[in-house]
Amino acid sequence: MTDPLAQGSTIGILGGGQLGRMLSVAASRLGFRTHIYEPGALPPAGDVAHLVTTAPYEDNDAIFAFATTVDVVTYEFENIPTLTLDALEDHAPIRPGREALRVSQDRLVEKEFLQGLGLKTAPFADVPDMAALATALTQIGTPAILKTRRFGYDGKGQVRIMDPTSAEAALAEMQGAPAILEGFVDFSHEVSVIAARGPDGAVSCFDPGENVHRDGILHTTTVPARLSASQRTDAVLLAANILNALDYVGVLGVELFVTPQGLIVNEIAPRVHNSGHWTQNGCVVDQFEQHIRAIAGWPLGDGKRHADVVMENLIGDDMGRVPELARDPATALHLYGKAEARKGRKMGHVNRIVG
Amino acid sequence: MTDPLAQGSTIGILGGGQLGRMLSVAASRLGFRTHIYEPGALPPAGDVAHLVTTAPYEDNDAIFAFATTVDVVTYEFENIPTLTLDALEDHAPIRPGREALRVSQDRLVEKEFLQGLGLKTAPFADVPDMAALATALTQIGTPAILKTRRFGYDGKGQVRIMDPTSAEAALAEMQGAPAILEGFVDFSHEVSVIAARGPDGAVSCFDPGENVHRDGILHTTTVPARLSASQRTDAVLLAANILNALDYVGVLGVELFVTPQGLIVNEIAPRVHNSGHWTQNGCVVDQFEQHIRAIAGWPLGDGKRHADVVMENLIGDDMGRVPELARDPATALHLYGKAEARKGRKMGHVNRIVG
Repeated sequence: MTDPLAQGSTIGILGGGQLGRMLSVAASRLGFRTHIYEPGALPPAGDVAHLVTTAPYEDNDAIFAFATTVDVVTYEFENIPTLTLDALEDHAPIRPGREALRVSQDRLVEKEFLQGLGLKTAPFADVPDMAALATALTQIGTPAILKTRRFGYDGKGQVRIMDPTSAEAALAEMQGAPAILEGFVDFSHEVSVIAARGPDGAVSCFDPGENVHRDGILHTTTVPARLSASQRTDAVLLAANILNALDYVGVLGVELFVTPQGLIVNEIAPRVHNSGHWTQNGCVVDQFEQHIRAIAGWPLGDGKRHADVVMENLIGDDMGRVPELARDPATALHLYGKAEARKGRKMGHVNRIVG
Repeated sequence: MTDPLAQGSTIGILGGGQLGRMLSVAASRLGFRTHIYEPGALPPAGDVAHLVTTAPYEDNDAIFAFATTVDVVTYEFENIPTLTLDALEDHAPIRPGREALRVSQDRLVEKEFLQGLGLKTAPFADVPDMAALATALTQIGTPAILKTRRFGYDGKGQVRIMDPTSAEAALAEMQGAPAILEGFVDFSHEVSVIAARGPDGAVSCFDPGENVHRDGILHTTTVPARLSASQRTDAVLLAANILNALDYVGVLGVELFVTPQGLIVNEIAPRVHNSGHWTQNGCVVDQFEQHIRAIAGWPLGDGKRHADVVMENLIGDDMGRVPELARDPATALHLYGKAEARKGRKMGHVNRIVG
């Protein structure tokens, strides 16, 4: 696919959560339809999609039927099974491409990739077994954090090691999954850059946002972030570096630790990112439309920010605050239509215009 | 329905065009689902709706089935058959209510209603037959405009009478439909007010926009409109007057002629309005979300404008300009996903941020 996607084309989206939902809305603004593929029943994205397929990712017949209805495939999460991608790629282009998924699906591969680009990361070591963990702990020291190489998100699959005596128990928590040990980084705050790249190589970045987490889940993103002019430039350049190295098409989220020694890359996400939700009320073209534009081969928005914004996630019981939030004229509500407000579940977010 | 509509509730929308499409997107932001009822196949709103019913408005079984799935019914056009409303109203609340539809479906009833509120309109006369037309022409003079009382939009069902000798031919064009003669108003420009009222009687107005038409179809809306401070106040007060008189719930569009003698009401539309599309990029809560908030019994947005905007409709061949418009970073595209770009067909619009 080299020509821009035509009006009425269908974009296939793997995953039917809130990111798929907001991608689908953005696609509609550009005259596209979406087809959501999601194993779970009644996906949030299905409320605003032209078609919904409810089937496991391992169901090759369903994947094939899905592929024949779409002009391009994208995704809202990075842990898509390799076999699903194999089944899809003969029928429709997958954007972002498989190299981005290969790198971001594995913390070890990702860190090696980033270091290969000359970017700074936390100190890390591969931990295939207890002997390797013991060696890693002597190199990296404590406190450190043991993580599964794959399938981690929102703080899941991670355990802190405060001193070497707890190493064995920590490794047991990995339940035999390949793991990586990461050293702690002494950072003042975390920022993220939401960047996009088109199939023609054009790159566009949104203004970095400053993130605050609670219980391992993003709590707020504030723009502008506290960054010096040179840090701001560094953030944009390193994001472009990553995009180009992956020959990336779409929106990418890059989480960065701000330290006196410079910016350290925490992790990358090959998709629209929770820390980019502020763009919905701060930019003419938001991250969701930017992603759709990129994968559709359309010109990218310039990422210019027209307002100061604080994005706050509404998690679980926070939904009880919706009536009050709805009364605040500077607050834009974005709710996901999820039936059940479980603890730790992202139910919506608000963008508060502060300037 | 007095309690605010709960998360996951379903809003039924009669009509599946671009207004229904953008209402559906706004509903999703507040966690609601939509069910579109539309006689035509593949309605634009269906791309972003949870459910779509394709059936004629006269199909009582389909209307009944539709009604049982929804918590409230609204509409994107005013010419809904009375029998459809009769079939619906026992099963779900219709918002805005039937009085608003009764008044706005008939130009004569509408003008008498407006005059009853003490508002200025163009001079008008009921034209049941040729004798009445002759009398009306002596009272109102020429040029004048003969319009069908019902089912007119975008300049359809209208004919100008430049002098009395063409009266008979003009009446013939009405094809026996009840008609109304309207005098011309000597106005400098047209503005419109998009106003909203909640079930609790709360009223909120967006800043008036200035409208330019081409070939009887809205071409651009510019905010701010050229209005004095007192004209601006008048516009808001008269819109509130209309909303209260109709015990209205939802968004209403009021088109006004600006004259040296004050503001003259051209017509009202009991729905979101093309001249309010600028709010999508000029306000935290746009007219579509405002309508959903009103009919859902949620607090209204305050209507505050944060940018100067020029909205331009993309009609028929204008779609050829989309690649160029997509490159302009200050231009927000809103395309409707219609397959065929026929002459005079509204295909999308752009909101250009100008300040």
